[in-house]
Amino acid sequence: MITSRQNPRIKAVSALKNRSNREQQARTVVYGVRESQRALAAGANVVECLWCRDYFRTAEAETVVESLAAAGAESLEVAREAFDKLAYGDRQDGVVSVFETPRRTLAELQLPAQPLVAVLEGVEKPGNLGAVLRSADGAGLDAVVVVDPVIDLFNPNAIRASVAAVFQSSVVVATASEALAWLRANELAIWATRPDASQMYWDLDFKQSGAIVLGGEAEGLTEAWQASDVTPIALPMHGVADSLNVSVAAAVLFYEARRQRSIT
Amino acid sequence: MITSRQNPRIKAVSALKNRSNREQQARTVVYGVRESQRALAAGANVVECLWCRDYFRTAEAETVVESLAAAGAESLEVAREAFDKLAYGDRQDGVVSVFETPRRTLAELQLPAQPLVAVLEGVEKPGNLGAVLRSADGAGLDAVVVVDPVIDLFNPNAIRASVAAVFQSSVVVATASEALAWLRANELAIWATRPDASQMYWDLDFKQSGAIVLGGEAEGLTEAWQASDVTPIALPMHGVADSLNVSVAAAVLFYEARRQRSIT
Repeated sequence: MITSRQNPRIKAVSALKNRSNREQQARTVVYGVRESQRALAAGANVVECLWCRDYFRTAEAETVVESLAAAGAESLEVAREAFDKLAYGDRQDGVVSVFETPRRTLAELQLPAQPLVAVLEGVEKPGNLGAVLRSADGAGLDAVVVVDPVIDLFNPNAIRASVAAVFQSSVVVATASEALAWLRANELAIWATRPDASQMYWDLDFKQSGAIVLGGEAEGLTEAWQASDVTPIALPMHGVADSLNVSVAAAVLFYEARRQRSIT
Repeated sequence: MITSRQNPRIKAVSALKNRSNREQQARTVVYGVRESQRALAAGANVVECLWCRDYFRTAEAETVVESLAAAGAESLEVAREAFDKLAYGDRQDGVVSVFETPRRTLAELQLPAQPLVAVLEGVEKPGNLGAVLRSADGAGLDAVVVVDPVIDLFNPNAIRASVAAVFQSSVVVATASEALAWLRANELAIWATRPDASQMYWDLDFKQSGAIVLGGEAEGLTEAWQASDVTPIALPMHGVADSLNVSVAAAVLFYEARRQRSIT
C-alpha cells in the first residue's frame, strides 16, 4: 500500500494534471469510478489504477477496480492521506486511473446508414467541449469531429464534463479542411450554426445524412464553413441575450434531429 | 478618482462577493458592461457604478456608465491598480456596479395568454441556475419560478452565467407548495422531468398553457411534484450516460415548446 504523499507514483499521476506532461507521455488521468468504467468500456487502454477504500461510496467501486485490473491496469492501493494528494475538484470517490490517450482519426470512423454527426470547431473551454460530448452521447449521435482544438480533449475538466464520453471511438480530431473533405466524401448535408442565418433549425430535414457544425464561444466558425454547400442555420433568440452557450445550442440541435428521426 | 486598493468603497464592493454580506445589505455586485446594462434594463435599482477607462474595450462602456449614473448610481472613477482588486474571473471590461437585490414573488408575475413557464427546484450550482435562466430568456419563456433555492440567485456566478437574466422581473422565488398552488390557480399544465417517465417530451402539446418543472443535479425533484395532476416526462438517453446536465435538459425542453408554438 502506498502511504506517502511523496511516493513517486503519486507524484507521477499528479503531474498528469499538466497538459505538457499528458502530451509528452500520451497518457491522461481519469478521476472517478464511473468515468474510469466508461473510459474502459469505450475501449481505451488503462495503464494503472490507484484506489483508496476509505473513499468508496458504493459496491460498484470495488467492481470497477477489479475490471480495470483485469484489463491490464497495474492496481495500486493508496492510503487516505496519500490519496488526498490526487484530489481533483470537490468530489472524491476512491478511484483514479491512468489511460493511454486515444488518438482517433476520421479514417477510423465507422458510420451507419443515414449518419448524424456533429462538428465542433474552436471551442475554448474544456467544460463546454465536455458538455457537448455528453449531449451528443445522450442524443445518440454517430460521431463527433473536433476541429483544430486549441484545448486538450483529455483535459480532466473535459473528461469530467463529458462523463468520459471523450474516450468513445466516435470522437475524432481533424483539421477543418480534412473535416470538410470527409463530410463531402460521405455525402453528408452540412448545417452550420451562424447568428446571422435566416433559416431556423427546426425547418431542416434532419432525417437526411448530415452534420451539425458549431463554432467556439467567442469567434464562431472560421471562413472554411462559408462554402456554398454549407447551409447556415439559426436558433431563434427571444430575449435580451444574443446567443446561447455552445453546449446548450448543441443539445437543442441534437435533440431536434433525434426527435425528427423518432417519427416513423 | 479612487487610487488606493485600501479605499473603503473598493473594500465594500469586494465584500459583496460574500453571500452573507449580500444578504445583510440586500445588494449584489454585477461585473461587466453588458451585465450592468441588462440588470438596469430589467428594472433593477442601481446603487453605484465603479469604472476604469483603462479597461474599456468598446464605446458601449462609456454609454453604459452614463446610463447607470442617469438612473441614480453614484459614479466612481477608479484607477487601474485599485480596480484590479475588483476583478472577478478572467474577464475585466472596466465596469462593476452594485444593485439592490430584487425580491420578486409569484403575486407580482404578469402572465400573457397561453403562458409558458419554467419551475426550477433544488439546483445546487450557480452556473447551472444561470445557464437555465439564459436559455429561458433565449427561448422566450414568460416566467421562471425558482423553488426553495439553496444557493443565492444573485451569486456573481449565477449573474454571469445568466448574462444578468436573473434580474428580470419574470424570475421569482417561491416554496414548492406556493409554486404548485399558483400553477393550479393559473390552470397551467404541469410537466415534470423524471428519469423514470415513459412519456417523451416531444409527444406533449406545448401549445397549452403550462410549466416545465426541472429538479436539481443530484436529487431531482422532491415528492411535492408527484401529485396526480403532474405529468412526468422524459428525455431519451441513447448513450452510456444516464442523464443530461440540467441546463442542457432545460434548453431542449424550452426550445421544443418554442418550436411547437412557432407552428401556426
